[in-house]
Amino acid sequence: METNPCNKSVNGGSTIPSRVSRKTKPTDTIVNINGVKVGGSEIVVIAGPCAVESREQLFETARSVRKSGAHILRGGAFKPRSSPYSFQGMGEEGLKLLYEIRKETGMPVVTEVMDTRQVEMVAQYADMIQIGSRNMQNYPLLKEAGICRKPVLLKRGMMATIDEYLMAAEYVLSHGNEQVILCERGIRTFETSTRNTLDLSAVPVLKRLTHLPVIVDPSHGTGVRWMVPPMAKAAVAVGADGLIMEVHYNPESALCDGYQSLSLEEFDSLMCDLRKIAQAVGREILAPKTTAI
Amino acid sequence: METNPCNKSVNGGSTIPSRVSRKTKPTDTIVNINGVKVGGSEIVVIAGPCAVESREQLFETARSVRKSGAHILRGGAFKPRSSPYSFQGMGEEGLKLLYEIRKETGMPVVTEVMDTRQVEMVAQYADMIQIGSRNMQNYPLLKEAGICRKPVLLKRGMMATIDEYLMAAEYVLSHGNEQVILCERGIRTFETSTRNTLDLSAVPVLKRLTHLPVIVDPSHGTGVRWMVPPMAKAAVAVGADGLIMEVHYNPESALCDGYQSLSLEEFDSLMCDLRKIAQAVGREILAPKTTAI
Amino acid sequence: METNPCNKSVNGGSTIPSRVSRKTKPTDTIVNINGVKVGGSEIVVIAGPCAVESREQLFETARSVRKSGAHILRGGAFKPRSSPYSFQGMGEEGLKLLYEIRKETGMPVVTEVMDTRQVEMVAQYADMIQIGSRNMQNYPLLKEAGICRKPVLLKRGMMATIDEYLMAAEYVLSHGNEQVILCERGIRTFETSTRNTLDLSAVPVLKRLTHLPVIVDPSHGTGVRWMVPPMAKAAVAVGADGLIMEVHYNPESALCDGYQSLSLEEFDSLMCDLRKIAQAVGREILAPKTTAI
Amino acid sequence: METNPCNKSVNGGSTIPSRVSRKTKPTDTIVNINGVKVGGSEIVVIAGPCAVESREQLFETARSVRKSGAHILRGGAFKPRSSPYSFQGMGEEGLKLLYEIRKETGMPVVTEVMDTRQVEMVAQYADMIQIGSRNMQNYPLLKEAGICRKPVLLKRGMMATIDEYLMAAEYVLSHGNEQVILCERGIRTFETSTRNTLDLSAVPVLKRLTHLPVIVDPSHGTGVRWMVPPMAKAAVAVGADGLIMEVHYNPESALCDGYQSLSLEEFDSLMCDLRKIAQAVGREILAPKTTAI
Repeated sequence: METNPCNKSVNGGSTIPSRVSRKTKPTDTIVNINGVKVGGSEIVVIAGPCAVESREQLFETARSVRKSGAHILRGGAFKPRSSPYSFQGMGEEGLKLLYEIRKETGMPVVTEVMDTRQVEMVAQYADMIQIGSRNMQNYPLLKEAGICRKPVLLKRGMMATIDEYLMAAEYVLSHGNEQVILCERGIRTFETSTRNTLDLSAVPVLKRLTHLPVIVDPSHGTGVRWMVPPMAKAAVAVGADGLIMEVHYNPESALCDGYQSLSLEEFDSLMCDLRKIAQAVGREILAPKTTAI
Repeated sequence: METNPCNKSVNGGSTIPSRVSRKTKPTDTIVNINGVKVGGSEIVVIAGPCAVESREQLFETARSVRKSGAHILRGGAFKPRSSPYSFQGMGEEGLKLLYEIRKETGMPVVTEVMDTRQVEMVAQYADMIQIGSRNMQNYPLLKEAGICRKPVLLKRGMMATIDEYLMAAEYVLSHGNEQVILCERGIRTFETSTRNTLDLSAVPVLKRLTHLPVIVDPSHGTGVRWMVPPMAKAAVAVGADGLIMEVHYNPESALCDGYQSLSLEEFDSLMCDLRKIAQAVGREILAPKTTAI
Repeated sequence: METNPCNKSVNGGSTIPSRVSRKTKPTDTIVNINGVKVGGSEIVVIAGPCAVESREQLFETARSVRKSGAHILRGGAFKPRSSPYSFQGMGEEGLKLLYEIRKETGMPVVTEVMDTRQVEMVAQYADMIQIGSRNMQNYPLLKEAGICRKPVLLKRGMMATIDEYLMAAEYVLSHGNEQVILCERGIRTFETSTRNTLDLSAVPVLKRLTHLPVIVDPSHGTGVRWMVPPMAKAAVAVGADGLIMEVHYNPESALCDGYQSLSLEEFDSLMCDLRKIAQAVGREILAPKTTAI
Repeated sequence: METNPCNKSVNGGSTIPSRVSRKTKPTDTIVNINGVKVGGSEIVVIAGPCAVESREQLFETARSVRKSGAHILRGGAFKPRSSPYSFQGMGEEGLKLLYEIRKETGMPVVTEVMDTRQVEMVAQYADMIQIGSRNMQNYPLLKEAGICRKPVLLKRGMMATIDEYLMAAEYVLSHGNEQVILCERGIRTFETSTRNTLDLSAVPVLKRLTHLPVIVDPSHGTGVRWMVPPMAKAAVAVGADGLIMEVHYNPESALCDGYQSLSLEEFDSLMCDLRKIAQAVGREILAPKTTAI
């Protein structure tokens, strides 16, 4: 028999750092985001707008996705934008709106932090802090996230190998925070028909190498609205522990990523389809949390 | 709203050549491989060894995958190998073995052709000819495939954009043969934890741009045996019209690609799982063909 | 000290096949194309149109590049085109024109072959046969090139690793032909501001691993006319044994690759600049061959 | 004539943000690092160890590279390391050592900053601050660099397109700092024989699109010591305004990147070779600054 041409880490696990490695801790880590558990047999859905744009936009979207069965609300207050001239987010005002709708709906909130100086403040408003793709190797930020002790959603860099990704997670764990969720969100390849190439094979690879939960972001992973439903279904079929998706009450008017956001109706319809796939792979979509926070 | 950063062909279809374009022919093309129809609501499974190695290896594998529900038998007689010193396939003797087991089991056969001088001969033994990834832009070979009139399984080159892939299919159609099946089989990226990166987003993109059936090869797409089942399930969930997978009666002893071949038991178990996913997306795995050829 | 993250073949050479390996043959191979020697201390320039389009176009271009100091004439008679509807080359008529101007100018001719059935015929007209990027892993064609015994210009596939490239060359050598020239011509990456990414680091890597001569194609490597001169200069500085460039007597009217072809004046001016760089790295541009073939 | 398949920005420049665009400011920007001017006709060389490891290591290396003709000293005090368990740099103690040798040798110093909270402090010790590849899209850091008014060396992200790179530079300029130097340092591709693929074509592309100086880092760009000299020569030939290279007085014992660091002797020898190439392209290597800072 020939030798396997693939990276030895998949088969041998030798380069996987110790705290994230499944060899060190064989059992799945369950991350608890204010009562919503990610990493168990139930599949969790995070939904909401790319950016918080206004009270109306956020609240209408949040109420609707909750009704459709989303478990956690997403929404950016600080937005990493390629151009300095694009909308950069509402800042702390956006965080306050997230906090308000969080109380009303009972949905925990995840939002991105980009600056070491903001970690403490963001952690006061959010139930989980997100470190985005562009900051996956922002080591001072990873250290702060490790110190802050809120659950961390660490997105894979669009250029990061699996090994580098696990090393980045190790930064958070090695600073004392084991509540880390990984998220495949598309890698950069030569293909230009999608915004990124959603690497669903990363899900089984990560699940094998680490005990941390793994979710998928089909919105950034494809960059195209009509591709979100099929890729979301595939993500559940491949074994993801959850999904994070952009939903907007009026995608055509979105200030950010409108072309990849689902409408409220599309999201509602997709949730029905996802329940069937979850069942087909022996899991289920977690029933929505009904008690207020 | 911002402009979509993705390639215009996904949204506008302007660069898609005419014969393969869904704009020219909005209805799905059904490719008929000696009675097995690919491209309709039923999902088709192609299985068998990477290479034909011996009568025993081929026949035992073929009988078993048929029993498990495979519809079409795969097996290479001419193998494109990176090294000139690797096993290059049994050649015409392998084709004769394929023809023999084809009669016994009633399963149509697909096998690869690499040389323009062999197209006619291979077409005499096989029900469908395969043009492999490395030959996706071998234009003389595409022309011969267009002339031969047997169904053609055209695999995506591991470096080919969607646009180039459709152009390659157009070569076959423009020479008179519309019986073409497309196959995503992994693209080359920076990631080394898998042999290739299986680009499942190519399935919805292709289905939108062209009327041709689209199947997925999770064996080459991952290069790792244990990753084939999750990726096969994801492929069905994402909307593929079929799967092609490597199965070997003794993967450890395979002369070619053993590390990515399923055992007979693994394949049988996977077929059960795939039926559930197919149902969850409103399709079904085609019942095995029982009449002899 | 840390371990080197790079591929072991660069440092250890263990996966390099034997016939192309510098370990097997430490001295540089000199390829002799009808009197023009490639691989020694002198740098060789191959120039001419992408495709042979007409007697006038070929002859005017050939006479001019010869006057400017080119040593070998390039020109395609069979063109591998992404679209079946693009100009496919003049075929044998183009070969005859090449043969005619070859006699007049005394410049040896290199032209591409795509089909195993054409190798013998093309070899009758040309002094060196070219196997293009898309056919780098067309193994039957490599075998025919190995049998034919004319010098072979084997271009790197645009997504071929160095190891795969050397394996492809090994196919030619293992069939009896050691007169092989390698050519870096750009690889496919995520970057879209150039047609391909010309990987000049491949030159020192290849020179270290193999005894075969290595040249560079800055025309396909960049796809943009104004980038050809700086990249050609860099190629000489980095240690290439030669260059192959597209030159057209009227780039604006070219049927193929006009936007990357140099005009006659641009080529003439570039040759002067290249002589200075060659001298700065202790080599020289070979003086043009003056005797007729 | 066919349409050019390449990105319109190279030819039309339409997506290039205004402050960095050569359309807005056609003349070359000269960045002045405490008397050393980058972006004019003279080529500038930045050299020094990857990381400051000790007084002896830094001082011996600095004195030697200065004697060989380097103009600016590099040395990391805060190191972005993939693993949390690797040497992370000496921190402020390292900055103090840099400041001390800076006074002794008269060489301006460049060092990396990773955290918004450290920009002010680092700027007190260094003549130019570096923003590394992993932080190219760390927007809060770019803004701080824009505010701080020290010259900024902004390295290209290893998977950043040219357009994204210019957008990142625009962040610095739009916050008031026009003293920005760009640096190509290798991109991530499928090729594994080098640590990265040094994209020398980025140099002419950037020089055409922006007025900012462009230098090249062949150390990180290749990751292999013996490849630094040929790639450095090619960088000068292609039109770079300068080079930044890792040099260590004892590469075998380096705590960081030793396998890509030149020895003192190798650097000295390379400087001689570079002078010849610079002359061949009509430029010269700037004579070392002799007055103390």
